[in-house]
Amino acid sequence: VKTRLAGATKEIFIGDGQPTRLIGERINPSGKRKLSEALKAGQLDLVREEALAQVQAGADILDINVNLFGVDDKKLLSEVVHLVMETVDVPICIDSPHPETIEAGLKACSGKPLINSVTGEKHSLETILPLVKQYGAAVIGLLQDDQSIPTTPDRRLAVAHHVIERAEALGIPREDIVIDALVMAVGADPQSGSVTLETIRRIRAELGVNVVLGASNISFGLPDREVLNNAFVALALGAGATCLIVDVSKVRPAVLAADLALGRDDYARRYIAGYRQRAAR
Amino acid sequence: VKTRLAGATKEIFIGDGQPTRLIGERINPSGKRKLSEALKAGQLDLVREEALAQVQAGADILDINVNLFGVDDKKLLSEVVHLVMETVDVPICIDSPHPETIEAGLKACSGKPLINSVTGEKHSLETILPLVKQYGAAVIGLLQDDQSIPTTPDRRLAVAHHVIERAEALGIPREDIVIDALVMAVGADPQSGSVTLETIRRIRAELGVNVVLGASNISFGLPDREVLNNAFVALALGAGATCLIVDVSKVRPAVLAADLALGRDDYARRYIAGYRQRAAR
Repeated sequence: VKTRLAGATKEIFIGDGQPTRLIGERINPSGKRKLSEALKAGQLDLVREEALAQVQAGADILDINVNLFGVDDKKLLSEVVHLVMETVDVPICIDSPHPETIEAGLKACSGKPLINSVTGEKHSLETILPLVKQYGAAVIGLLQDDQSIPTTPDRRLAVAHHVIERAEALGIPREDIVIDALVMAVGADPQSGSVTLETIRRIRAELGVNVVLGASNISFGLPDREVLNNAFVALALGAGATCLIVDVSKVRPAVLAADLALGRDDYARRYIAGYRQRAAR
Repeated sequence: VKTRLAGATKEIFIGDGQPTRLIGERINPSGKRKLSEALKAGQLDLVREEALAQVQAGADILDINVNLFGVDDKKLLSEVVHLVMETVDVPICIDSPHPETIEAGLKACSGKPLINSVTGEKHSLETILPLVKQYGAAVIGLLQDDQSIPTTPDRRLAVAHHVIERAEALGIPREDIVIDALVMAVGADPQSGSVTLETIRRIRAELGVNVVLGASNISFGLPDREVLNNAFVALALGAGATCLIVDVSKVRPAVLAADLALGRDDYARRYIAGYRQRAAR
């Protein structure tokens, strides 16, 4: 299965022989005081810088999240989407817990964006999937069906099947659903990594759709996070993940290395180009 | 399947729920001028230092190779084996292309060593397997049956089946064969990583035996070798490799991270201990 996304002028595909796609996660105020304050003040220079820097570092898609207490997030998301699409040509990923904010982002957007996200919960399916259909977008399906995250591959797979059935019933093609297999901190649950890896393998085998991960959650609360993140990224790509939501400049070297080791980079062209780009900085 | 090895006083197991086992590769003159000269002069202080440093860095087993032009390698290997076994308590891996040198190492050795290696070639099977049987050792089976290395998983599997049949026919238990799935430079052949990974999966599924790799061959001739080695190590462990022949101090952080992400390190105990040990240096 191949998922098509499009920015203002640039089209990209996820899956089916493509290199691993990277969604840049840095346009998100969570845990970033400077960006939070700039967004609250309506100052978007920092957003422009982050957009450029992430694409320069190799982001294929940019996630945009402006979820902040006390702002008009419909208006702000719309402005940020416009700015990012003026600044870079990659597709965007509209990230909000609020359906009406997502719709504001969709209205501001040209091309074919990714929506982050729908879950298996009734309310989410009923509000998000119609937007996916109406705007011809693609959507990330998170494998939870209530407030908690299922801890077994069986239960996660059940949610994935349900989300895809509901989407297909609305006429949304399966390739426009990218499943987030969910990554929890392995410091809190020693089996969380293996549960995610097994979930990825089963989604690929049973449903064939693309799989995305917020990979760096694996290392939450542990020391030397990059070493663990890099190992987990390689394992996840080996298991079949095709897309990652990450801090691109940190994770891309390990991703290029894993793609090369998995036979997805003939003559090591991308690996060597990535190395040269980093060496030149 | 669980492979038991023993040093002078210490027993270790490979496979079956154990953490990934690391064979320290540094007692080997290949490409090391200082060690070559010391070995030729019969000065073994450097060997003692390397033995201690590798075990300190987390080596579970030490490879010993003294293959040098113009030395009496039977006598030298015997001396080095004695010295290493006096210095550290881990099992050793006797590494030589010459059966008579291997036998000299076996005679010098207490415990249960690993022999590196037997191949699928007639001469190798006929000279090495009887030594494995006679001395109650374990052996690494290299997946080649002539001077070249098979480039497909099918052909590598055929060699693995053949080596194990011949060993079992002599009464050597299957768990005493550790298969080296062979790693070739991905810069020279873009599919070499994926062929090795598929070979590992099939050996585990069809034969169930332990799998060892000289993982760093993957990056030969490429820049930023550690990034690629670390990604390939994680992929190989995810595919089912249980043992690595490596420069331990370089590769161990990535191995501890992969073991943790694969659910083999409850409460991240080994990962955190490894981090603290490095941070204290």
